[in-house]
Amino acid sequence: MRRYPLLLIFLCCLFHTNSVHSQQLIRKEIHLPDIMGYQTLKCDLHIHTVFSDGHVWPDVRIWEAFREGLDAVAITDHLEYQPHKKYVDTVSNNAYELMKSTAEELNILLIKGVEVTRKMPPGHLNALFIENADLADDPDYEKTLQGLADQGAFIFWNHPGWIAQAKDGIRWYDEHTRLVEKNLIHGIEVGNYGEWYPEALGWCMEKNLTLSCNSDIHEPSDIYREYAGVKHRLVTLVFARERTLESIREALLDHRTAGWFEDTLMGQEKWLNELFLQSVTLSKPFNEMDRERFYYLSNSSDVSYTLHIENEADKSLAPERIFMPANSTILLSVKGQKGSVVPVSYIVENCFIRGRENLKITWNL
Amino acid sequence: MRRYPLLLIFLCCLFHTNSVHSQQLIRKEIHLPDIMGYQTLKCDLHIHTVFSDGHVWPDVRIWEAFREGLDAVAITDHLEYQPHKKYVDTVSNNAYELMKSTAEELNILLIKGVEVTRKMPPGHLNALFIENADLADDPDYEKTLQGLADQGAFIFWNHPGWIAQAKDGIRWYDEHTRLVEKNLIHGIEVGNYGEWYPEALGWCMEKNLTLSCNSDIHEPSDIYREYAGVKHRLVTLVFARERTLESIREALLDHRTAGWFEDTLMGQEKWLNELFLQSVTLSKPFNEMDRERFYYLSNSSDVSYTLHIENEADKSLAPERIFMPANSTILLSVKGQKGSVVPVSYIVENCFIRGRENLKITWNL
Amino acid sequence: MRRYPLLLIFLCCLFHTNSVHSQQLIRKEIHLPDIMGYQTLKCDLHIHTVFSDGHVWPDVRIWEAFREGLDAVAITDHLEYQPHKKYVDTVSNNAYELMKSTAEELNILLIKGVEVTRKMPPGHLNALFIENADLADDPDYEKTLQGLADQGAFIFWNHPGWIAQAKDGIRWYDEHTRLVEKNLIHGIEVGNYGEWYPEALGWCMEKNLTLSCNSDIHEPSDIYREYAGVKHRLVTLVFARERTLESIREALLDHRTAGWFEDTLMGQEKWLNELFLQSVTLSKPFNEMDRERFYYLSNSSDVSYTLHIENEADKSLAPERIFMPANSTILLSVKGQKGSVVPVSYIVENCFIRGRENLKITWNL
Amino acid sequence: MRRYPLLLIFLCCLFHTNSVHSQQLIRKEIHLPDIMGYQTLKCDLHIHTVFSDGHVWPDVRIWEAFREGLDAVAITDHLEYQPHKKYVDTVSNNAYELMKSTAEELNILLIKGVEVTRKMPPGHLNALFIENADLADDPDYEKTLQGLADQGAFIFWNHPGWIAQAKDGIRWYDEHTRLVEKNLIHGIEVGNYGEWYPEALGWCMEKNLTLSCNSDIHEPSDIYREYAGVKHRLVTLVFARERTLESIREALLDHRTAGWFEDTLMGQEKWLNELFLQSVTLSKPFNEMDRERFYYLSNSSDVSYTLHIENEADKSLAPERIFMPANSTILLSVKGQKGSVVPVSYIVENCFIRGRENLKITWNL
Repeated sequence: MRRYPLLLIFLCCLFHTNSVHSQQLIRKEIHLPDIMGYQTLKCDLHIHTVFSDGHVWPDVRIWEAFREGLDAVAITDHLEYQPHKKYVDTVSNNAYELMKSTAEELNILLIKGVEVTRKMPPGHLNALFIENADLADDPDYEKTLQGLADQGAFIFWNHPGWIAQAKDGIRWYDEHTRLVEKNLIHGIEVGNYGEWYPEALGWCMEKNLTLSCNSDIHEPSDIYREYAGVKHRLVTLVFARERTLESIREALLDHRTAGWFEDTLMGQEKWLNELFLQSVTLSKPFNEMDRERFYYLSNSSDVSYTLHIENEADKSLAPERIFMPANSTILLSVKGQKGSVVPVSYIVENCFIRGRENLKITWNL
Repeated sequence: MRRYPLLLIFLCCLFHTNSVHSQQLIRKEIHLPDIMGYQTLKCDLHIHTVFSDGHVWPDVRIWEAFREGLDAVAITDHLEYQPHKKYVDTVSNNAYELMKSTAEELNILLIKGVEVTRKMPPGHLNALFIENADLADDPDYEKTLQGLADQGAFIFWNHPGWIAQAKDGIRWYDEHTRLVEKNLIHGIEVGNYGEWYPEALGWCMEKNLTLSCNSDIHEPSDIYREYAGVKHRLVTLVFARERTLESIREALLDHRTAGWFEDTLMGQEKWLNELFLQSVTLSKPFNEMDRERFYYLSNSSDVSYTLHIENEADKSLAPERIFMPANSTILLSVKGQKGSVVPVSYIVENCFIRGRENLKITWNL
Repeated sequence: MRRYPLLLIFLCCLFHTNSVHSQQLIRKEIHLPDIMGYQTLKCDLHIHTVFSDGHVWPDVRIWEAFREGLDAVAITDHLEYQPHKKYVDTVSNNAYELMKSTAEELNILLIKGVEVTRKMPPGHLNALFIENADLADDPDYEKTLQGLADQGAFIFWNHPGWIAQAKDGIRWYDEHTRLVEKNLIHGIEVGNYGEWYPEALGWCMEKNLTLSCNSDIHEPSDIYREYAGVKHRLVTLVFARERTLESIREALLDHRTAGWFEDTLMGQEKWLNELFLQSVTLSKPFNEMDRERFYYLSNSSDVSYTLHIENEADKSLAPERIFMPANSTILLSVKGQKGSVVPVSYIVENCFIRGRENLKITWNL
Repeated sequence: MRRYPLLLIFLCCLFHTNSVHSQQLIRKEIHLPDIMGYQTLKCDLHIHTVFSDGHVWPDVRIWEAFREGLDAVAITDHLEYQPHKKYVDTVSNNAYELMKSTAEELNILLIKGVEVTRKMPPGHLNALFIENADLADDPDYEKTLQGLADQGAFIFWNHPGWIAQAKDGIRWYDEHTRLVEKNLIHGIEVGNYGEWYPEALGWCMEKNLTLSCNSDIHEPSDIYREYAGVKHRLVTLVFARERTLESIREALLDHRTAGWFEDTLMGQEKWLNELFLQSVTLSKPFNEMDRERFYYLSNSSDVSYTLHIENEADKSLAPERIFMPANSTILLSVKGQKGSVVPVSYIVENCFIRGRENLKITWNL
């Protein structure tokens, strides 16, 4: 049967329609799986508002977090650079106070923090889970950090490869060694704004520091993404026992994090391996013809994965390269006798477990 | 020249880049949940190819089914109208034969069928699970249907409200009564191409017939959607024990189906109720202030739901109208003393369980 | 840390890619044609910042204007309602001062204004092209308006149908008559945020007042659109001799404006007629067969038009309804002897020239 | 004023809405400018249908051409490879005959052609503007080509770098020299399906042959794009005096063509230079501060341009790299004394005028 083109029907009681539609915020969840008994909380641990050099009122950060599927944000305005000071009362606890009720209403976990903004070394550092941001102003950065640590802060070194503070390349200073030894640095921000730093990923692994990956957002979110050239905000994945502030803090101290930067994941092998295996499902083989069989390979996550085969010898058996778009299923064709299943290893090009070293996974194909 | 699906080529170095990217079909799964111990198979039980009056070679229908997340399609070319006869060998089993190997390779279940294309009454009817389509040509439609039934066919009446055969409105004829009595009609196509028929939904419920909802596609899929004015192909949801042809057949005979037309679902109350409850999740309340509390309402399905409150009296308590976009979470605000949970009923405007009667659901809010 | 707009970075070689892409604002021009020797300037004459009850720093409004293809914005914070007063120095000229250099850099025309925010009547009014916003605080609204008029202000009544001030429906008060007589109201905001008021369009035409149509934006632009339920910001089209502030002022005083609300255009017949005719192009007829011929109908504007035929008698000749999607071409089929061209009139359902009266256009088909 | 979230309004006379929307094909014009007094016709000179090894009925190719903004297509089924022969009457003129009336109705210019499908050398060749495709079957390829030339054919060598016929790399054979000398090859297909061949672009320029760039489409268009990994179909731009078949033929013989492959343009310098200059508009400078001024740089075409500055010395003056997204405006910042305009040259990385040599353009900045 053929349906013939009918006319447009647009019945909106036209003469009475002068207003429109839904008027509510819509949240798009981030599809990244829970792993190993933990909830995978999506967190942005570095954000700014008009109370430092940002361009939005604090409540906007909560609206954005809700819409973008975040579980938690840390407010990290700084005291040292306050270009709006002429107009805004920049006491640093203000932004937190102004976000609190909106955060509660929209069920976003809000972490009180401050960015300590100093010359390199040691550069900028975020202190989270603090009591009072306004105490972060001692000209001696070590005293400032010690004061924040005394408040119970979790502290990480921000954007170590930021060109403005790393003109000759990213570099680990003696000062950082000292701060780590004094337990005044607990982590490193491996991804920031629109870039990430493989060297810093290496340092996290070598020195047993916690990785984070954050937007450092100053603008409204859509403008941030245009400036940063990213499709989604950078996210720190926190593997937490519960969706609570206390669980986030515990997870950070226990190094249970990974970073999500565009389609790149970075973090300890055990986390990335599980994220991959919980995201990507290999079906049973079907249509097992003489010497070829097929699988559905389904990726239920928001990350697109790119793989290449590890061993030259396996290329005659399985695809040399595999591209698995986010939230999609593809067909995998494997050669070989029916039933003759063998392990085949792939390098996951967009997952980094140590500097520029990639995750490796193995399927029985 | 024919280009065969190759592997991903991602040559970055500019001077060697003269070809591009991924070369594979990508499947987007349809997000509608399994219910009540059944798999929710997404099926299109009415499609055409060049072997009747369609515009594509049979294998295209399998590629499209894979890409669009279908589990099964029925090939239902007809013998009576064959405009390409001058050029194409229109023996009706040909299309099925030409689809089979592609269906196996892409793991799409392929149902052999035929459309019996007669004047109204009885109009057009699809016979599925047949052996030989070429026997469907007896000028006496009843003999044709009996012959197909003898082959074991499941038979349904197509597009009963199609304007070309229902100029004065949709109508149930005595002939249909007779065919039902003789067990030669087992179902009705309630949705077709770009429209659906509430009256036909009513008949399914009254007469205990199986509902189906299909594309009746003739064109390539993107052109079909433009002509039909739909965002996705019409789908028959089949609640099957397994993802097999036999399970589909058994489910059809047992009336375990629903129809999916844009954001409209139609079918028995028990199925729609479960589809809704498995798609839409109400969180625990949070931020329970003095006399207001909030919930996350998460819709993990591809259907956007529109609800209005049933009882006038509840409007002071809970939202009068709720719009839940597909694959999204919204915030629900409820008034009332902390802990004073009461049942609140909503009419689901886009779910039809009998003619124009809507599904009703109740939440403890 | 603040990221400054850098140049495009496009590092292909995988092992050195840890940052991304373009870092610049991208402007999408609005496609609505110049008409009758005037430039069609796209203006938003009603916006807010943190300096009244808005949620963004003033420069964001210029970034948004650039990105969304606007030519001009008016900053219209108010003195009467200042919820951020505890934190922000809400002297009303501040926002203007803070926007000026960004506006110059991005070539956005910036109009200094103020919103006078009073109870109904007279409700809220915007005064544009003022010198000093801080003089808008006399408790006697008439004195305030007179003071602004003395500064040379162009004044219009905002959102007359806003439910919070028009609970029993939109209404013209004696106070408005008096203000018009005293030359203290020059126009009416017919569209605002996510709604528009046909009655107010009627008043503009009857009383010879200037129509405007504005966002009244408080949030970042993407969140505004989600709350308002609109796909694009509301825009006042100003038909100006030049792209200058003075030309805008002159055009406003001369009633050379129209409103753009989703796919709805509202304004004087002469403007809408020309906007339509410059947007929609009818090709020469082709394929003139015996009694049918075809045309391309091309819509080069961002507005989708919906038409229905005026005269019953013409339905046998030309399509009863026409839907022309934005930036698209469709095929028009017309019956009739070759060469027998006749005028056919259509009602343009989405163009309003007086209250709910639609534009009519005629083609020789 | 703040508009409070209202409820969804979705008035569709719900109980009467069971069908949907527009039912027509929608054409999206390709935005590439006319140049030098010629119309820039968008042509695909290489397509297939079920009458060779394609997967769609011939009329689909016209629907697709209309929707995708093409002006002309050439039907180029081949005689040598006919996998559907068992079912389809593959006389090669059939496809053309079946497309003709749809082409006339949708105003698409239809070129009758045939693909001569031989081993390399000479590989595959398309002959356009022929009378009878069925004469293209002489086993001696030269005789076949001579016969087609005698019909008045314009002949070009297809996909010279296709891996299946160029396993050791793209190569010019003596046979091609002979065919050119005998006037049996007039052009080369520099782009095909999902790849293009810089060497072939060089040959076009050296040997004064006409460049073409075509889809070689076999599947429905959306599936073709997925397989080929392209966002739009490959297009031959023909600079023609009129939108007629005769003008296309004349333009092809006069080498007035360019190729459009994703964001890559390839062709003679004079064409690409004009395409660029007619697409990209530099505004007058504004905001000329002490030592910096700004321009709007507007790209009204569907091609995104990527430029880098030619001379090291100019980097202190103007941006080193410029990325101009399709259909967008960006801001250009230039240093230097007010009024001190100097010529600055840029290499256009996505425009190729000879092998891998890029177009260069110069602006007075």
